[in-house]
Amino acid sequence: MEARKIFLREDEMPRQWYNILADIKMNPPLGPDGKPITPDALAPVFPMNLIEQEVSTERWINIPEPVMNILRIWRPSPLVRALSLEKALGTPAKIYFKNESVSPPGSHKPNTAVAQAYYNKEFGIKRITTETGAGQWGSALSFACSQFGLECKVFMVRVSFDQKPYRKSMMAAWGGKCVASPSNETKAGRDALQKDPNTPGSLGIAISEAIEAAVTDESGETRYSLGSVLNHVMLHQTIIGLEAKKQFEKIGVYPDIVIGCAGGGSNFAGIAFPFVLDKINGKKIEIYPVEPAACPTLTKAPFVYDHGDTARYTPLLPMHSLGHAFVPPPFHAGGLRYHGMAPTVSQLVMEGLIEPKAVTQLDAYKAGIITTRSEGMIPAPETNHALACVIDEALKAKAEKKEKVILFNWSGHGLLDLMAYDKYLSNQLSNFELSEAEMLASEKVFADFPKPAIIKSR
Amino acid sequence: MEARKIFLREDEMPRQWYNILADIKMNPPLGPDGKPITPDALAPVFPMNLIEQEVSTERWINIPEPVMNILRIWRPSPLVRALSLEKALGTPAKIYFKNESVSPPGSHKPNTAVAQAYYNKEFGIKRITTETGAGQWGSALSFACSQFGLECKVFMVRVSFDQKPYRKSMMAAWGGKCVASPSNETKAGRDALQKDPNTPGSLGIAISEAIEAAVTDESGETRYSLGSVLNHVMLHQTIIGLEAKKQFEKIGVYPDIVIGCAGGGSNFAGIAFPFVLDKINGKKIEIYPVEPAACPTLTKAPFVYDHGDTARYTPLLPMHSLGHAFVPPPFHAGGLRYHGMAPTVSQLVMEGLIEPKAVTQLDAYKAGIITTRSEGMIPAPETNHALACVIDEALKAKAEKKEKVILFNWSGHGLLDLMAYDKYLSNQLSNFELSEAEMLASEKVFADFPKPAIIKSR
Repeated sequence: MEARKIFLREDEMPRQWYNILADIKMNPPLGPDGKPITPDALAPVFPMNLIEQEVSTERWINIPEPVMNILRIWRPSPLVRALSLEKALGTPAKIYFKNESVSPPGSHKPNTAVAQAYYNKEFGIKRITTETGAGQWGSALSFACSQFGLECKVFMVRVSFDQKPYRKSMMAAWGGKCVASPSNETKAGRDALQKDPNTPGSLGIAISEAIEAAVTDESGETRYSLGSVLNHVMLHQTIIGLEAKKQFEKIGVYPDIVIGCAGGGSNFAGIAFPFVLDKINGKKIEIYPVEPAACPTLTKAPFVYDHGDTARYTPLLPMHSLGHAFVPPPFHAGGLRYHGMAPTVSQLVMEGLIEPKAVTQLDAYKAGIITTRSEGMIPAPETNHALACVIDEALKAKAEKKEKVILFNWSGHGLLDLMAYDKYLSNQLSNFELSEAEMLASEKVFADFPKPAIIKSR
Repeated sequence: MEARKIFLREDEMPRQWYNILADIKMNPPLGPDGKPITPDALAPVFPMNLIEQEVSTERWINIPEPVMNILRIWRPSPLVRALSLEKALGTPAKIYFKNESVSPPGSHKPNTAVAQAYYNKEFGIKRITTETGAGQWGSALSFACSQFGLECKVFMVRVSFDQKPYRKSMMAAWGGKCVASPSNETKAGRDALQKDPNTPGSLGIAISEAIEAAVTDESGETRYSLGSVLNHVMLHQTIIGLEAKKQFEKIGVYPDIVIGCAGGGSNFAGIAFPFVLDKINGKKIEIYPVEPAACPTLTKAPFVYDHGDTARYTPLLPMHSLGHAFVPPPFHAGGLRYHGMAPTVSQLVMEGLIEPKAVTQLDAYKAGIITTRSEGMIPAPETNHALACVIDEALKAKAEKKEKVILFNWSGHGLLDLMAYDKYLSNQLSNFELSEAEMLASEKVFADFPKPAIIKSR
């Protein structure tokens, strides 16, 4: 019998992250004055050791031993051959995935949460604030903070706070404090509540609250943490792809296609960037970030300077953006409901190194059920977007009778998203399409911002 | 750094189950006439190949290749060194666990669900019925049936059906059909509804419905399946302990103490029986099944003949029983709310080969939180009972300055039980104690049944 799972021993784990900033040139983030922002300007928000990592152009960055030690709770994650999915599709393609759902919070998010908690602790920080939408990131940071004895405060968008009670219970189990946003604990929250006491909240308001709670703490012992988009977040996730490469080496295989879903970009970057490095060095490989058709950042939005948050607290970032005021339609994949994209991922699209795809909600859930009933595990709704693309490519390979090797990232499990599956199976889900008018309207918000340069790194 | 996880390769998986009936003598199950029941009498309920396995006294039974192939989706499960829990307790004890939460349904249950689905399929069965309380077993059987293309029908106790909507969604994702019990689909269900249209249901009624649905299907293509108690269920679970022994051999370690929580007995049997074999052969080892103090079958109830179900459909089984009409107080560990015990586990207690323990609800959840905040993963409420005993033993070892090796079974994750954690953390849980009067009252139901012999196998 062919093995389903390829493991690395813990002592075979990569000991360095791959920093793609060594291999591509980037437009700088801009401050409120339109000039490149300095590390010092970010000091009230992030600890300086993480800010240094954010701007580093070293290609390989050592993973600290205490971070390695916590990652080993679930890492190296298995590389899995999806034999049963292949059989269900009748494809000659060989489908592999990295199973990132095996982490305690159930997704790839703790890869960076653990690293960020460590660097904050090293810098003398006692308390981390963050926001969370659907709850994956808040869970991961609560877990990571519990490992380093840090306090964790999570502002969770009220509508999710009310609809997903399991997520706040999960954070509580790790000792994280989760409050519904808008809250009465910050000026931003109080202002929002005064405007509308019954507001469902938004990620924009939650970010504002989390940043405010960090920068206004007079002890100076609190910082803010972000779970995607930023360079150091992408960096910490590259352990996924670096492990995958080692696992493929063990069995003498190399992928033809690498696929990951993309919301803010972090799980995609994690699996893809180490393979982008090979592509830069001449390797022939296709790399696809997959986004929801209802939030088509990379596939339809322009490459611009825009804020990372609705409340315009962040610097201007060079990225594909639907506009910082864009509110995605209510499709069920919370981790992909983001108006922008990691600048590094956007830059790779601009350089033609990766080729974005978009899939509809119904195609995503269809792929999720095909996979659940063959491979057995229930994927996260975000992962279903990658799966829709994987199945598409596997069926193409079948039509062309080609034995292609496909690798994708199983970014998380769907055990806390079962309600959405229920809706899909009882025909209560539908697709969403954005009209040209909606696209144009949402783009107005960045019309007056500076324009990023079109850079070709080589 | 010491490794946290000890893996086996898939080709190192045990290829045989261990059958403890080769090494202990048992009282036979009795029919309605008080005489030992014949295999033929069970034929309308179970397929004959499983009935043969139920009564087999062969020590080693081959695991069929198609079963191995599905088990490899998550097996071999990791043997984990709980380094962070040891550190949190400051104990010199070395704590190891088998992580059975890595299966797609999240518990040890699919070890037997997959085997049972296979044997039913081999026997020409098209459809399996079962009951489920909290939902773990119904989920596992739905998963297993989807792997072999069988229909799966689950009667779920109404109160759980309403309170745990995620569980029925999970079954639906695998294609399982889950209905609230009592239902209108069976006579037993209709009778119960006529008596009380608002009944919350009970495991007793659900079992009656599932058995009735199987035996009344005129096509002859439907059978019933049980997730615990029976000999063949214990057999299929022994792969847990057999893997653990191989993993320990790899690192030159052997446990001093083996611990598993015990409701019907299957996860305990799974980890413990292979070590019981060693104990029979002269090895010095302590083996503790751990049950809830609020359902103290092994620690307080007598060893008697009693029915396995409230509705008295099953044969009389020789076991410790609180009485088939016993309704446990509403503590939060659904998998441990059972009035009886696997006859094999009961027999081992009678032979003095294993020593049962009981822990309270609050001690169990306290242990769960200590573990969640050190090891990182959130255990199932059932697993918390094992953990309370593990922590107790680890602290004893600390007091005695002994470097004991403790092995326990992490029977499942708590991701669909987070509400109970929430209640614990907000001080809404309490302990339950059974009065002597309650114990005596519940024992009346088996007063007139035959008495099992006290057997010492050697």
